[in-house]
Amino acid sequence: MTARIIDFLNTRRPEGPCLVVDLEVVRENYLNFAHALPDTRIFYAVKANPAPEVLKLLASLGSSFDCASVAEIDMALAAGASPDRISYGNTIKKERDIAAAFERGIRLYSVDCEVEVEKVARAAPGARVFCRILCDGAGAEWPLSRKFGCEPEMAVGVLEHAHRLGLRAYGVSFHVGSQQGNVEAWDGALASAAEIFRTLAERGIQLSMVNLGGGFPTRYLKDIPGVESYGSAIDGALKRHFGNRIPETIIEPGRGMVGNAGIIKSEVVLISKKSEQDQVRWVYLDIGKFGGLAETMDESIRYPIRTIHDGDDRAPCILAGPTCDSADVLYEKTPYELPVTLSIGDEVLIEGTGAYTTTYSAVAFNGFQPLASYVI
Amino acid sequence: MTARIIDFLNTRRPEGPCLVVDLEVVRENYLNFAHALPDTRIFYAVKANPAPEVLKLLASLGSSFDCASVAEIDMALAAGASPDRISYGNTIKKERDIAAAFERGIRLYSVDCEVEVEKVARAAPGARVFCRILCDGAGAEWPLSRKFGCEPEMAVGVLEHAHRLGLRAYGVSFHVGSQQGNVEAWDGALASAAEIFRTLAERGIQLSMVNLGGGFPTRYLKDIPGVESYGSAIDGALKRHFGNRIPETIIEPGRGMVGNAGIIKSEVVLISKKSEQDQVRWVYLDIGKFGGLAETMDESIRYPIRTIHDGDDRAPCILAGPTCDSADVLYEKTPYELPVTLSIGDEVLIEGTGAYTTTYSAVAFNGFQPLASYVI
Repeated sequence: MTARIIDFLNTRRPEGPCLVVDLEVVRENYLNFAHALPDTRIFYAVKANPAPEVLKLLASLGSSFDCASVAEIDMALAAGASPDRISYGNTIKKERDIAAAFERGIRLYSVDCEVEVEKVARAAPGARVFCRILCDGAGAEWPLSRKFGCEPEMAVGVLEHAHRLGLRAYGVSFHVGSQQGNVEAWDGALASAAEIFRTLAERGIQLSMVNLGGGFPTRYLKDIPGVESYGSAIDGALKRHFGNRIPETIIEPGRGMVGNAGIIKSEVVLISKKSEQDQVRWVYLDIGKFGGLAETMDESIRYPIRTIHDGDDRAPCILAGPTCDSADVLYEKTPYELPVTLSIGDEVLIEGTGAYTTTYSAVAFNGFQPLASYVI
Repeated sequence: MTARIIDFLNTRRPEGPCLVVDLEVVRENYLNFAHALPDTRIFYAVKANPAPEVLKLLASLGSSFDCASVAEIDMALAAGASPDRISYGNTIKKERDIAAAFERGIRLYSVDCEVEVEKVARAAPGARVFCRILCDGAGAEWPLSRKFGCEPEMAVGVLEHAHRLGLRAYGVSFHVGSQQGNVEAWDGALASAAEIFRTLAERGIQLSMVNLGGGFPTRYLKDIPGVESYGSAIDGALKRHFGNRIPETIIEPGRGMVGNAGIIKSEVVLISKKSEQDQVRWVYLDIGKFGGLAETMDESIRYPIRTIHDGDDRAPCILAGPTCDSADVLYEKTPYELPVTLSIGDEVLIEGTGAYTTTYSAVAFNGFQPLASYVI
């Protein structure tokens, strides 16, 4: 919660639910990352929040960009990033999209299997590729599946294949899981990465880079370690596994860069009970799972919620969105404590919503407009 | 799959994933409902697919419309429905939205608690209200939570409150769960509704209407009972519980009206394994959970998928979408059988996708465009 956001909401009084992002917080986050990991290039994960103002600020601060699609590449270019500061970081790409990226000057691609290497070799000849490896993600709040990456043993073959096809076998990437609370989570994956570096070196292929991925948390309800703790834990793990041959490194923060820069303003639409005996109230907001709060899926991410009654007694609520979809419930298995004095029409502020909200929003489910966004 | 859709895809060759809806199928579904439930008014659930062409066709056939928001009310009006053919069926409404609906001539509102009745009484004086009651939803594939409705005992008080505030206590509604496979599922809720009718009649309040909701299934992988079986089971239950005083009835089909009218055309982007030993392939499509297939959540809805290799041997796959989101996996707990000859670049047709797809689509997650839609 920043004074600038409060001031914006008080003066502009926007109608309907909206996200307000404070660029000063984004700037501070960027500088903290740069300071905590001084030898690491920062590739902002555009998908977290692709607002042009955010991309422009980060480009001006010197950030590079991790893009998931050609559309995101175009956004990063439009924000002022040169193609050498852009990575096409999605392991799942149509060959014609790789060609479109190559035409725009993009030379860095993510892969996790041999057929994807073959697509890149055909559509982006000579480009650099890094191979994503699987990683268990223990300690992360937003679970990662096995969707991206391959087993480390297979990565060796994938990178050799790239080398054979005239690509530059450039490095290894992994992702320790989003909203990762354990600063040591990078250690195991870095051990695997170092092993891949050694095996390939024995076969005459010198890798250059480790992509440390994202996972850096933003503060929701629980306290989180500072970014400098992540920096020193990663530094220690790099030295432990790579000795005095530390590779180039990059990170791809998304949530950690913009999460705490945004606040969603919402309104209480209804408070009710299902029977006279019910102990737990249902509180319905004008935003829900399909309006931008998709990360409440399985109740993974618990956002802090501020109301004007925050000093008052609290009682558990089931929190739900405004649509006619019964799956549009935010917190039910673990009810959310809200002030007993909360009333219909009250404004609520949902903190830590700068990442993974606007773009998750449905086009027009139930006729509701997608989440409005103001970047200040 | 209809000849018109196949013909459209073959001649138009639209680029990227898209939904194609055949209006002839929608027409046939409407006529089947009207034939199976001749004494029941049909209120199409606009949220299932609000394409203007669909609404226009249904309006011309005589359908009424169940709307979840003022935007949906405006769509129904634009399609040619008069206000008396529109219900504001969302139990969660801002008071200013009720006022906006009232101004447009809407006189039928859904409620499930006393405070909502008070909003309607202030913003839509004299309107008709029906109270939604809870219903267990057993037998439904898309689970309903306790989000909407109140316990039947409470409904009596809610409707009495409406009567006291000058509204017309008009009836009772319930929803037996979406994609309901049990034709007898309406029986229990109709018993509760009849009990509410009796109790209120004793207190001098005559209810008129039972809103039987939606729940009528569309065919996915499993066979489903025909709409005429639902019609006769409901007719039987009405006679059982209301005797010779059968109330007005309405139904709100959504999925059952448009589900089987639509096909999503998609493309295989990648097929890979995570290790040499993996038995199960990962198949990645250019559409996923955030591009319109949200109802694969918890793997509830299993769509039939056609490929040009359908005669060949099949093997289980994990099916996933194209985004960098690890939650964007369609079927993993129960892998999906697809032909072993399926290749990258192949077109796949996802059947039964006419309902709850386009509007669930994310605005631009990962930079991917929302699902395109063609109504033919």
